[in-house]
Amino acid sequence: MSLDALFDPRSVAVVGASANPAKWGYWLAAGALAGRSRRSVHLVNQRGGHLDGVPFLPDLGSLATVPEQIVVAVPPQQVRPVVVEGLAAGARCFTVITSGGSGPEEERELASLVTSHGGRLLGPNCMGVVDTTTELRLSWGDFPAGAVGLVSQSGNLALEIGRLLARAGQGFSRFVSLGNQRDIDAADALDALIAHDATRVVAAYVEDFRDGRRLARTLAAAHAAGKPVLLLTLGRSEASGRAAASHTGALVSARAVVDAVCRDTGAILLESAGELVDTAVLLTAARHGQGQRRAQGRIQGQGQGSCLGRGRAVPEAAADADADAFASDETPASPEAPRIAVVGDSGGQGALAADALTARGLHVPVLDEATRAAVAAHLPGRGGCGNPVDLAGAGEADLRNYARITRALLDGGDTDATVLTGYFGDYATANPEQTREECEVAEELGEAARKAGRLLVVHTMARDTPALTVLREHGVPVYERIEQAATALAHAARLERATPYAPPGRVPPPSRPVADGGYESVRALLRSHGLDFPTAEFVTTADEAADAARRTGYPLALKAMGLAHKTEAGGVALGIVDETALRAAFARMRDTTGAARYAVEEMAVHPHSVELIAGVRYDPAFGPVAMVGLGGVTAELLADTALALAPLTPVRARELLLSLRHAPLLTGWRGAPAVDLDAAADALCALARAASEHPELIELEVNPLLVHPGGAVALDAHGVLT
Amino acid sequence: MSLDALFDPRSVAVVGASANPAKWGYWLAAGALAGRSRRSVHLVNQRGGHLDGVPFLPDLGSLATVPEQIVVAVPPQQVRPVVVEGLAAGARCFTVITSGGSGPEEERELASLVTSHGGRLLGPNCMGVVDTTTELRLSWGDFPAGAVGLVSQSGNLALEIGRLLARAGQGFSRFVSLGNQRDIDAADALDALIAHDATRVVAAYVEDFRDGRRLARTLAAAHAAGKPVLLLTLGRSEASGRAAASHTGALVSARAVVDAVCRDTGAILLESAGELVDTAVLLTAARHGQGQRRAQGRIQGQGQGSCLGRGRAVPEAAADADADAFASDETPASPEAPRIAVVGDSGGQGALAADALTARGLHVPVLDEATRAAVAAHLPGRGGCGNPVDLAGAGEADLRNYARITRALLDGGDTDATVLTGYFGDYATANPEQTREECEVAEELGEAARKAGRLLVVHTMARDTPALTVLREHGVPVYERIEQAATALAHAARLERATPYAPPGRVPPPSRPVADGGYESVRALLRSHGLDFPTAEFVTTADEAADAARRTGYPLALKAMGLAHKTEAGGVALGIVDETALRAAFARMRDTTGAARYAVEEMAVHPHSVELIAGVRYDPAFGPVAMVGLGGVTAELLADTALALAPLTPVRARELLLSLRHAPLLTGWRGAPAVDLDAAADALCALARAASEHPELIELEVNPLLVHPGGAVALDAHGVLT
Repeated sequence: MSLDALFDPRSVAVVGASANPAKWGYWLAAGALAGRSRRSVHLVNQRGGHLDGVPFLPDLGSLATVPEQIVVAVPPQQVRPVVVEGLAAGARCFTVITSGGSGPEEERELASLVTSHGGRLLGPNCMGVVDTTTELRLSWGDFPAGAVGLVSQSGNLALEIGRLLARAGQGFSRFVSLGNQRDIDAADALDALIAHDATRVVAAYVEDFRDGRRLARTLAAAHAAGKPVLLLTLGRSEASGRAAASHTGALVSARAVVDAVCRDTGAILLESAGELVDTAVLLTAARHGQGQRRAQGRIQGQGQGSCLGRGRAVPEAAADADADAFASDETPASPEAPRIAVVGDSGGQGALAADALTARGLHVPVLDEATRAAVAAHLPGRGGCGNPVDLAGAGEADLRNYARITRALLDGGDTDATVLTGYFGDYATANPEQTREECEVAEELGEAARKAGRLLVVHTMARDTPALTVLREHGVPVYERIEQAATALAHAARLERATPYAPPGRVPPPSRPVADGGYESVRALLRSHGLDFPTAEFVTTADEAADAARRTGYPLALKAMGLAHKTEAGGVALGIVDETALRAAFARMRDTTGAARYAVEEMAVHPHSVELIAGVRYDPAFGPVAMVGLGGVTAELLADTALALAPLTPVRARELLLSLRHAPLLTGWRGAPAVDLDAAADALCALARAASEHPELIELEVNPLLVHPGGAVALDAHGVLT
Repeated sequence: MSLDALFDPRSVAVVGASANPAKWGYWLAAGALAGRSRRSVHLVNQRGGHLDGVPFLPDLGSLATVPEQIVVAVPPQQVRPVVVEGLAAGARCFTVITSGGSGPEEERELASLVTSHGGRLLGPNCMGVVDTTTELRLSWGDFPAGAVGLVSQSGNLALEIGRLLARAGQGFSRFVSLGNQRDIDAADALDALIAHDATRVVAAYVEDFRDGRRLARTLAAAHAAGKPVLLLTLGRSEASGRAAASHTGALVSARAVVDAVCRDTGAILLESAGELVDTAVLLTAARHGQGQRRAQGRIQGQGQGSCLGRGRAVPEAAADADADAFASDETPASPEAPRIAVVGDSGGQGALAADALTARGLHVPVLDEATRAAVAAHLPGRGGCGNPVDLAGAGEADLRNYARITRALLDGGDTDATVLTGYFGDYATANPEQTREECEVAEELGEAARKAGRLLVVHTMARDTPALTVLREHGVPVYERIEQAATALAHAARLERATPYAPPGRVPPPSRPVADGGYESVRALLRSHGLDFPTAEFVTTADEAADAARRTGYPLALKAMGLAHKTEAGGVALGIVDETALRAAFARMRDTTGAARYAVEEMAVHPHSVELIAGVRYDPAFGPVAMVGLGGVTAELLADTALALAPLTPVRARELLLSLRHAPLLTGWRGAPAVDLDAAADALCALARAASEHPELIELEVNPLLVHPGGAVALDAHGVLT
């Protein structure tokens, strides 16, 4: 069922309306009345009263027409009777503000009641719904109008985002407060925002992802539709995990999992409300005419309006850069890193801007000769026409120079975006006579960006001055701090470079459950999926071991089964060269471990091999997630791992491997031959598939997975059953 | 000579005074006149005129008394005559605003002229000097009064910092614009600010460190005096290096070097003006009564007022945490990490605050039972009394609950600081009737922090409301974004944990210069400093090699001398087992490399060894800087290095080794024996000492330095001559 009745009902009834501004019922009623020109508004309170000349009706039965949406703000025990009454009155959309008083079961039952009538329910325990494009304001607090759609599981955070958006000259198209998500959930609400034309950027604060795979599909669909999704969530600390558990009762997904899902679906994961707003402001500006070079096929082909072109060549310096402890801490910009021109009022601010941008992976290149000349024309006798460009007083000499020089940079074609940093916007503060001229220059700046089809971003020490309003009206994002501008640009660049994958669906379990998580069972499972292991036989006595060894051949390995940490427990002996050594090892191992069962296994010796660690774990929301990382004894120190939703395709598995920091070790480091990447990828796919088909294994790990120029072989494996 | 005349002259003369607000001469004159009640002010302009009733005198000779400070804002060609005239009139302090028109040589000559008369000169090309405690305002722009002293090489950046400080309710005690530093330099200005009682926090923006060792001593002295120094510089990108070169002509120090110097001297290196201001605001608040538990010896012993206590025990969870790719990306908090209590209006904001704090190395621990009970008393029937504490409407129910709950946390004693995040401060916005009560609660919050002697930090979506003013008046830092609060707290924590070293002085070169940077010369130099190398002989023919081999013994290594990259050039053969193999290797190597000289060297074979890389490089400002890192073929991928000013003490060298991310490999990883850390440290000391005594070697490197349980041995070395 569509959510039209949620965002633009032809009629709305507020049950629990109040004339007391200390009550939620007041704000809901007053908000509803603000949309009276567009829809009929009914206020209900059994104790009577009135607001703004509108009398409170005693009950929903007294309404002359069917209310399309009913907002419920009554004491908990009255919620269900009101919903029943509403359904009887023909209503099919309910927004339940009321919190507490009933448990999850009662709430689910209430939601089922509504959906069984073909209706939808928002909440309970939510802050309501707002659509500034339909004059719908069924909530408390200020919701400035704008182009950002917000879905939030926290009301206060929505207020904070609203405050920050308003200060940046932006606001909300729609706001949906999720509350306890008993029917309408985050994915539903996101779908509605993605489909909403007036919503140019979608923001979401979600603590409890529910069906993570569905959410992932929604995120990928948003990217395909050209709607950036900015996601805020918790779970970077144990403390926030505790908070979520007590707040929503949900298990928090690991941050690394959410990070991988966002990367793979083209969503942007942020750290704070401020960072989200900074990025939203840039993206709404970029989608507002500024910075869209539609003529270029490569950008149209991306499925969404582009605000930052891609650099065409790796800059010399970055390509040559290696890990030099004494060098600048510049991350070599990737070939696709947007090239940013910086123009500053002072050398110091320009340099700090260049540093802030570079630290976030953006590229501040040397300008072309032609651009330098075009800039120098307005900086007579000055040397500061490199990048960053140092105005060094040219702005004070003539405010128009801001526009002239910025235009030269925007038109230069050798950079993808321009950052103006420093003082501009504040001339009118010291000298009000300059207000008009500064606003005119602001207009010229906005026009220059629009005509060039490139993004202009302004960082200024000014706040709330007329020139800044003009800039914002012209779609130029303005920031109080250079790091905000740099972070927003970096997120926009990430969004443009994203090449989303279709999130894999869950695999139905076709096989019999695995009996246990021991090596023998897990090895059999993984071999049946095509993963290669050394030849092994499982034995219980020394004589059986010696027999098996004759078939396997020496040197071999002996492993005790059924131990949690067999290496530490003395349950592994490697490189056994003959039967005498085997029998000695067997006796020692049985004494030490008391194990009942042993593997006699061929020794895998492969020159130029690299040890990986690979695993799959079940995330409470996203299901099986595959991990691969650098293995060996220093794996923990390296902490070089990559994650993706399981199952994997060979292409995806290969990319995961190549995304590791230590990937050069796999592709032929310092003259060594490359390992067989296809075999390594196939091994990961087999592992991911096996785990996906066996949800009873909440954890499955191969460590080490030995990859070498001739293939990939698993040397140990174990699983953990639910 | 003291800088009293710079900051509090009994008389000042502005030469180049103007009545035109578009001129610098106007702002300097008007600023000088603002201090008329404290000092005599003379305005000089040869063309006459007047300002604010004060007539412009024609020249300095017309002054009745000696001006203690002369501010020069005349065209470039008149600067020198004015200074000469001023010296003749008895002045000994000159602030030269004028920029351009004369080269570095002329400027140096001007400075020498002044200092040869026992005077001091600030600038040229500077923005002047401000002391808000002496009503001295010899600059342009707003300089709000406060407790932050600023030294800046960029005028615009100073204005930006001033704007941001003012918005946070802070300002400047003193401001010194360095300009071209021809006499008074950054270290001079910092010394004056450190000694200034009203300056509680010192901030500096420096592009050109000049004598870096002297600056390092100044930074260490500041820490010892309890004055935090917050440093901003450029050089994180090639682009900012280019900017500096064109701006000040200075070579930029590598960021990693500045980072190491700050860490070792107890200064805080920041990324942006905003981050600097956020941290300054927290530190000034903390030094303003709040958060100073002076009764505790361990804090008094630190040499400066403490604002954050130290956690006493490693939290269980953090101690157990290992590198789990699926886990939260929480950095295990160090044992000294301050413990932060978080209280939020909503679960979402509290959780995001916990995440932001944890991501920056702070600890958000589970609260003690007693504190939980004290909090729960004000949250009847609620579960949110963990950490973060979720007010969940308790604030709306009674604003006083903010104070009650925050006090319970501050008084609990189980955390070192409290962060209040969310809505507080904004109640009066929606309902002006609550203004008075909200301000009273703000006062209670400030009082609670003061009485508890612990730091309270507030993040709020409000801006510029009366309650925020009250909080700031009570020394409570207030932030608009949670990440600002978290970053400032993290910097404050870093400051408290800092254990500065006395920066080593430069070592006078006592030895003869090294002839070249080849292995033979460098080996000899390093051996003379006590660094161990394998036995080697240097030969020119195969017969000599065979003779040498008989003395050295097999297996051995043969290396060609005089090659830049000898391994890649085929100039290294290892593990040669007998004379036949030696002669074959020799012939092959001579054919391939054409080298004239060869080393016949004992093979160093040590079980449980770790390959390090160690080097020293000359920084343009800081001189010789020692580096040590994990070596071996994957050194570049690991990028695990640590730096410190050379020479080193054994204690410092040991700490550098232990600061490496891979340090566990050195101390006995997974059952392996520990390497000989003392020998490794001695080897680093020898290398650092040798390089310090030989400034002609701009680079000196040992790679690999093999460290093992029995010692440390250098397997290769080379140098680069100036």
